[in-house]
Amino acid sequence: MASDMTLYWGSGSGPCWRAMICLEEKGLSGYTSKLVSFDNKEHKSDEVLKINPRGQMPTFKHGNVVVNESLAICLYLENTFKNQGTKLIPDDPAQQALVLQRAVESQNIREKAAFGMLSYFFRTKPEDRTEALLEEKKKACHEELQIWEGYLAKGGPYIAGKDFTLADACAFPFLGTLVRFGFNISQYPHLAKYHDLVKDRPSVQASQPPHWKDTPAKDLLKDI
Amino acid sequence: MASDMTLYWGSGSGPCWRAMICLEEKGLSGYTSKLVSFDNKEHKSDEVLKINPRGQMPTFKHGNVVVNESLAICLYLENTFKNQGTKLIPDDPAQQALVLQRAVESQNIREKAAFGMLSYFFRTKPEDRTEALLEEKKKACHEELQIWEGYLAKGGPYIAGKDFTLADACAFPFLGTLVRFGFNISQYPHLAKYHDLVKDRPSVQASQPPHWKDTPAKDLLKDI
Repeated sequence: MASDMTLYWGSGSGPCWRAMICLEEKGLSGYTSKLVSFDNKEHKSDEVLKINPRGQMPTFKHGNVVVNESLAICLYLENTFKNQGTKLIPDDPAQQALVLQRAVESQNIREKAAFGMLSYFFRTKPEDRTEALLEEKKKACHEELQIWEGYLAKGGPYIAGKDFTLADACAFPFLGTLVRFGFNISQYPHLAKYHDLVKDRPSVQASQPPHWKDTPAKDLLKDI
Repeated sequence: MASDMTLYWGSGSGPCWRAMICLEEKGLSGYTSKLVSFDNKEHKSDEVLKINPRGQMPTFKHGNVVVNESLAICLYLENTFKNQGTKLIPDDPAQQALVLQRAVESQNIREKAAFGMLSYFFRTKPEDRTEALLEEKKKACHEELQIWEGYLAKGGPYIAGKDFTLADACAFPFLGTLVRFGFNISQYPHLAKYHDLVKDRPSVQASQPPHWKDTPAKDLLKDI
């Protein structure tokens, strides 16, 4: 089944990691994996642009079906392989509502915390950084994480309750990225416990950015 | 059925309009409508914050089930009322993939075109605006609209092909907002045709921002 699937992805991209966790959770680990080099601009190659005019990763093909956008890929996989592997969207209406909301909402962790902070360090030269803007970004990051700390305090251990769902596949990659770059997650006890619970999950281990194994992390976020 | 539903919403908000179109399309127009005043900060009231800690609109309640995030509300409505009203997510895998992708992707129209442009006019005082930043924003807006023009040129008349779907409910509000503020959509013939096709649809007419009927639009985007 997975033999007619191809995922184009970039190592270290949170959105790609989301799709890869879902593929693993749905028992589809035999897909063709096309690792694309951001440094070499392979995500803007003709091969990619033909199926993804934005040249963004991830891009997914299942037979002749193309799906771009990480959340759309995850929803597609769950709908298409509903009775296979981990049930990522529960049937119970209240549970389902929570899972869908948190899956969409997790984009905020990317924008305000993980990518929000990291892009400032990656894209702004040290001499152009200002204390005021850094403080503003730190504040947004902590406000965001506080919301998720509150969610987990009210009803964990997973993002939407007692089971691993689509919400975890969508949220964890951004939390994992924060920790990789030295963010001290023990500032948030429930998030720390959550990170510990999920980081060694087989789907997460099988799909975590491969270069993380060989290269030391930069501690860019250690003082955040 | 709709009698146990409440939607908290703000007039003129594209995300709210998305949810309202879906409610109409699913035949749920009898829901309790709670119009919230952004000017009076009612979206940050205790009543709202209790069910939506971000204090963002829309917020939806169905019995005791709470769903925030416009896309999550739309997905929830379609999943819960699958066999009622307009089928917003098709069963055919290729069609479904396209609808899901475009629904998620339409957030770009908000960020790069509608809200992207309007927030600059609303939030930056005329004396603080710069020609360079305005040009940058205009460029991003046109690049984004060009992508959608291309999609419609390849396969319209709706956003994901021959039928009105979730992708239209998600994308149209941002295009409608651009036109409301004077954007000359005839620069993009396929988008103009699409706007004409959808603007008078009953679900769109029933849910368009009510103050649009009584107050003239500001032509903020006429030169974009």
